[in-house]
Amino acid sequence: MGEVIARLAMSLDGYIAGPESGREHPLGIGGERLHSWVFGLRTFRRMQGMEGGAGGPDDELLAEHVARPGAVVMGHGMYITGEIPWGDEPPFHMPVFVVTRHPREPLVKRGGTTFHFVTEGPERALELAREAAGGKDVSLAGGADLVGQFIRDGRLDELLLHVVPVLLCDGRRLFGDPGDLGGLPIEWRKTQVLDSPEVTHIRLRRTPPAS
Amino acid sequence: MGEVIARLAMSLDGYIAGPESGREHPLGIGGERLHSWVFGLRTFRRMQGMEGGAGGPDDELLAEHVARPGAVVMGHGMYITGEIPWGDEPPFHMPVFVVTRHPREPLVKRGGTTFHFVTEGPERALELAREAAGGKDVSLAGGADLVGQFIRDGRLDELLLHVVPVLLCDGRRLFGDPGDLGGLPIEWRKTQVLDSPEVTHIRLRRTPPAS
Repeated sequence: MGEVIARLAMSLDGYIAGPESGREHPLGIGGERLHSWVFGLRTFRRMQGMEGGAGGPDDELLAEHVARPGAVVMGHGMYITGEIPWGDEPPFHMPVFVVTRHPREPLVKRGGTTFHFVTEGPERALELAREAAGGKDVSLAGGADLVGQFIRDGRLDELLLHVVPVLLCDGRRLFGDPGDLGGLPIEWRKTQVLDSPEVTHIRLRRTPPAS
Repeated sequence: MGEVIARLAMSLDGYIAGPESGREHPLGIGGERLHSWVFGLRTFRRMQGMEGGAGGPDDELLAEHVARPGAVVMGHGMYITGEIPWGDEPPFHMPVFVVTRHPREPLVKRGGTTFHFVTEGPERALELAREAAGGKDVSLAGGADLVGQFIRDGRLDELLLHVVPVLLCDGRRLFGDPGDLGGLPIEWRKTQVLDSPEVTHIRLRRTPPAS
């Protein structure tokens, strides 16, 4: 069975989006800053249907990560904020399972992305995504609430953090507020650190709690 | 004139101490985890008056940092929580200026540490520390409130973060709550990243705002 993986860009002070993130500002005010390192990369551009772009270590890391999943799980809030900017050919190119309370028919987009709307909770969404992934990994796209829920429940196997050297000072926190993740320390094992001028990538695997 | 520098150990989710930090738990519950990488290092042990310990890249980085300051500024909360564990020979070995509202005579300890209690605010404490440092740097020891205040006011020149791969999930945050640092993004420039199994050191310099 594949693993559950996620990658997120985070400021030094723990934000993955600026303030007022939503339909009007998908990344929050100032939140583009967290992604400036990725916009020019070949792999990122290819996912958006664009040609060209830079290679190098950042791109290789990204390419390796995005080649792994066979399906995506995402929260409703992320779907709502992304719907318009993603356009007719969203950058997923695989089945995406949206955890939502609003039943809706599957939405087939160009380029291989189909959005499935799952009303039976994140666990069911993961189950369906695993089936669709056919042995490949499942990527957790976000948002923070959903990632937090998976971390708390011990269902996130690997987390790739792109740490950007900026303090956003406000916005949406990846790891939520005190207690959101359960209140007990959660250990990770670093498996890779790759540093480049604009970003420090830290790859982490969950350490199973001692039993 | 020397620079203002700080070094702090931080969890992935931004905590520098566990919950209930105070006299009873100086590092907060579970907060020792953030410092486990440092306890065995030669430089750290020497600061505590102990012999032996490990060398290597972590130790060299620490040694380089602790050789720089000629004086320390610290908040009252940190002084209160540290007073007892530091004992008769605190690990500073230089003048320490405590920002407090409680006037008190200077307290001379063994090994070169004298605590001076400054009631005229952090700016005055920094001024006195600069004088005492005689051209060397001034180290900002903590706590989070004081470091945050210096960051917000643009008075911290260099920040050495020791990022530890654990989610503490609760405790005292280095960068406070949304808005505490002023609400506008603050850019830093990475000058060094050193990774070792237990910790990732990220050294940052404040980028002057465009004027």
